[in-house]
Formats: sequence, C-alpha cells, structure tokens
Amino acid sequence: MYRQVGGFDALVSAAGEAHFGPFDTMSEGELALGIQSKLLGQIRLVLLGRSLISDGGSFTLMSGYVLDDPIPEAVSFAVANGGVEGFVRAAALSLRRGVRVNAVSPGLAADSSEQFGRFNPGRRPVPMHMIASAFVRSVEGWRSGEIIRAW
Amino acid sequence: MYRQVGGFDALVSAAGEAHFGPFDTMSEGELALGIQSKLLGQIRLVLLGRSLISDGGSFTLMSGYVLDDPIPEAVSFAVANGGVEGFVRAAALSLRRGVRVNAVSPGLAADSSEQFGRFNPGRRPVPMHMIASAFVRSVEGWRSGEIIRAW
Repeated sequence: MYRQVGGFDALVSAAGEAHFGPFDTMSEGELALGIQSKLLGQIRLVLLGRSLISDGGSFTLMSGYVLDDPIPEAVSFAVANGGVEGFVRAAALSLRRGVRVNAVSPGLAADSSEQFGRFNPGRRPVPMHMIASAFVRSVEGWRSGEIIRAW
Repeated sequence: MYRQVGGFDALVSAAGEAHFGPFDTMSEGELALGIQSKLLGQIRLVLLGRSLISDGGSFTLMSGYVLDDPIPEAVSFAVANGGVEGFVRAAALSLRRGVRVNAVSPGLAADSSEQFGRFNPGRRPVPMHMIASAFVRSVEGWRSGEIIRAW
C-alpha cells in the first residue's frame, strides 16, 4: 500500500477485526484474531509508514469504548484496544520529524446500533459526524500520544 | 502446569517477557515478543485454568506502570500491558462460579531500580512489600476486573 502511495501526510486507520462472541467458549484462536488484526495490523501501519510519512505528519489508529466500558462479548476487542492505546501512548515519545500518533476511541457508532445496540443496554449511539470529528481533531490537531474518545 | 497441580484457589502471574529498547529501530518481531509472552502467555493461564480453578478462586495477572506513564524504550511493554488490562476488565464480566480476575500494575520495583532507574528520571522506586501487598489485595479481596496500581 505504502509503495503505491509514495509520500503521505496523514494515515487514518479504521481497520482491523476482532472476535465478537461469548467469553465462556472463546478459544485462544478467536481471542488472538483481535491481536493479529486490530492490534498488530494497525501497529504495522506505523512501523512500515514511519520512514515514509511527511515531516509533521500523523498516524491515527482506532481503539474503542469497550476497553473503558467492556461488554461480555467483546473480550477480543478489549484486548486489541488496550494494546493499541498502549502503543500510541508509548510510540508517540519516539517518533521523529514532528510526526504524531493518536488513537480515536469511538463509542457505539449510530450506524452499528441496529446490529450491536442490544449488547449495550443504555448506551446512547454516537452520531457518525462526532466520530468523524474525532479523526479530524487527530489529523489537524497538535497533540500526540492522545486517546481521543468520541462518545 | 495445571495438570500437575490439579485444583487450585488462586493463580498469581508475574511472568512474561517483552522487548526493552529504542522504538526507532524496533522491529515487528521485537514488538511482538511482548504480545506473545507477556500478553498471550498470561491470557492463556486464564483460558486454560478457568475450568480447573475452585469456586470463588482468583486469577491475578501483571500489567505495569509504563502503560500509564510510558518511557521510550518500553513500547513493547506498553502494548502488552494495555492488552492485559483490557482482557482483565472484559473477561471479569463472564467468569462463572464467583471466579475473579484482576491485574496488578507495579511501578518501578525497588529491586529493578539499579537496572532501570536511569530510564525513569524522577520516578521513585516502589518498595517490594508494596507490590506484594497489591497481589495480596487481589487474591484475598472481593473485587474483580480491577487494575490494582502499586506505585
């Protein structure tokens, strides 16, 4: 991907899978999906892109509210999100040339509330424009190593 | 290990490696050491032990202060610790038979301060008995899904 793009000013990642289902029967493989995809997949974007990004550029990764307010089915997501937030906070200390890295932690997205609302009693869906604004704040803002919560 | 022990009331883990070194030159493999060892290794202890532990038993895993207050050399630790804390918070919701799971997050241990103090300017080492107390609080206490910070 980076080879095709060449230089770039900002990378925004909203990618990465994790397993959603009961913890009781969750296998190590199911749990590791979040680690391989949502955690290591996003970290890889920074490791590979850090030498190619413009001076003063930014990386924005995606975490999620189930780290702060977990639900039983989202253990794999919580593990991945925790790893992402740890990465962002620590990696920000060492990026050079003014390059920044943040994570956006979206709440329950309005577009997902039909599918996932029933797993989140009392949780108010977050309008999509609020989540988009959080990404804008990361890309156009000044801070680094921040977790920007959109909920 | 579990096969040799048979039943048990409490598991305390202070195990798990991660890579310590500059992020600038950190490879994906170095970063993944923390994920494989300190993160997945500890999660595996819960996945394998949850059907064998006594009613009302407890798992206590180990996180660490570099998630909250990162230092440049500890990116791999921060990722692992974030994943551990996410796991503990979420998995606690689904453990049955009154089984609990917590994490202790030690500060800079006094016993490690000769080796690691120079990477932690101004950080006061935590006496070993304070860290031991945090583990006792998890094992003998009542709460679950908690991160018990010892610093």
